[in-house]
Amino acid sequence: MTLESNLINIVLVDTIHPGNIGSVARAMKTMGLKRLSLVNPRIFPSDDAVALSGNATDVLKNATVYKSIKEAIKESTFVYATSARDRSIQWPIMNAEEAANDIYKKTSSNKEISIIFGKEDRGLTNDELELANKLIEIPANPEYPVLNIAMSTQIICYEILKASSNLENKEWRDYPEVNSEQLQMLIDHFIDTAVDIDVIDPDNPKKIISRIKRMFTRLQPDEMEASFMRGFLSAIQKKFK
Amino acid sequence: MTLESNLINIVLVDTIHPGNIGSVARAMKTMGLKRLSLVNPRIFPSDDAVALSGNATDVLKNATVYKSIKEAIKESTFVYATSARDRSIQWPIMNAEEAANDIYKKTSSNKEISIIFGKEDRGLTNDELELANKLIEIPANPEYPVLNIAMSTQIICYEILKASSNLENKEWRDYPEVNSEQLQMLIDHFIDTAVDIDVIDPDNPKKIISRIKRMFTRLQPDEMEASFMRGFLSAIQKKFK
Repeated sequence: MTLESNLINIVLVDTIHPGNIGSVARAMKTMGLKRLSLVNPRIFPSDDAVALSGNATDVLKNATVYKSIKEAIKESTFVYATSARDRSIQWPIMNAEEAANDIYKKTSSNKEISIIFGKEDRGLTNDELELANKLIEIPANPEYPVLNIAMSTQIICYEILKASSNLENKEWRDYPEVNSEQLQMLIDHFIDTAVDIDVIDPDNPKKIISRIKRMFTRLQPDEMEASFMRGFLSAIQKKFK
Repeated sequence: MTLESNLINIVLVDTIHPGNIGSVARAMKTMGLKRLSLVNPRIFPSDDAVALSGNATDVLKNATVYKSIKEAIKESTFVYATSARDRSIQWPIMNAEEAANDIYKKTSSNKEISIIFGKEDRGLTNDELELANKLIEIPANPEYPVLNIAMSTQIICYEILKASSNLENKEWRDYPEVNSEQLQMLIDHFIDTAVDIDVIDPDNPKKIISRIKRMFTRLQPDEMEASFMRGFLSAIQKKFK
């Protein structure tokens, strides 16, 4: 794991129960994060927080207390806020996995990222949400989507840890993916070739053509693969003409 | 969500703190699961459990208490156990996401699935783990992978909910994926054809061949796609001979 965990700042706002602060500290540490900011916690420091933090007392000890969200996120270039469902406010919303991938990619810019979690009983107000660039929603049971704050933190931190290992595993990609125009050219070239060698029935081409499109779109070829395939198709066409 | 949540049985073993049982009930309900089995809980029913269950008192009310794991999983065809790292015992281990996909797919068989979570301070013993068909490990910070039991349940249930919506989105797949033997035959056929039409340099074929293998493996073609590609390649070879 090369996760730059110091760049990721977990911000808890107006937390009522100090036990939740301890549980959040433990949730963070189990996923490799350590930087905790507390905006107006009702009680802190607290024995309840320590009791629930497990072996993450270092996260509590290094936590910083702020008087406002603005102050807590002052140094952050990117700000995410976790949001409950069905808000009247319209805002771009990412799910936890998408947000985690986005956050992990941003750590490479070496700039600070804050993720804000609201008060236990009401989440974040619209004014508070507006401080964020992006909203995160955790997929949940629509009939009861009410996760405890430490549970929400656990899931977000877990997705960030997964993103860090998934994206490391993708480092085999030595060429960038083709853009949509290049992809379309490859698909057209493939279909032309298939017609040339009579494997597409010109009377009823529709179904197979949509399958070919779906197949190449799913593949998401990189530039080297697309270039090889174009060469392959050109060689076939040259020999046929 | 078409999740058949009654088929998924969450089993907590020897739970010490009743508050954890309440937190597990809430974690389950937020992700659409409701069937909870308790093996020798130290204290149950309990006000602490109710206090931490939020709006999931129905899950607690319907929970069943058993004297042994065997009794709790008696009706289950598939049994998963959650495991900490670095066990001496060698056992097939899936991560939470893989396991959730596996579990969700099995709900279509209409057979019961149990997921066992061990005691807070020691997890499951080797004897208990051996009751399971498969072990689940939650990816975590190797220096402190110690998740609270309710956090572990939250993550597993969250991954199951995600699997249910992801796999529904994949229902466009109208043919099964090819098996590894069929995939290998397709790759070999493609390479042979590429050699026939001189797009692979026979003096230095290695790098491009490994790229071709990687490309088709990533594609995971279904049987219709593979069959079309085989026809495409045969048509080329026929014209060249």
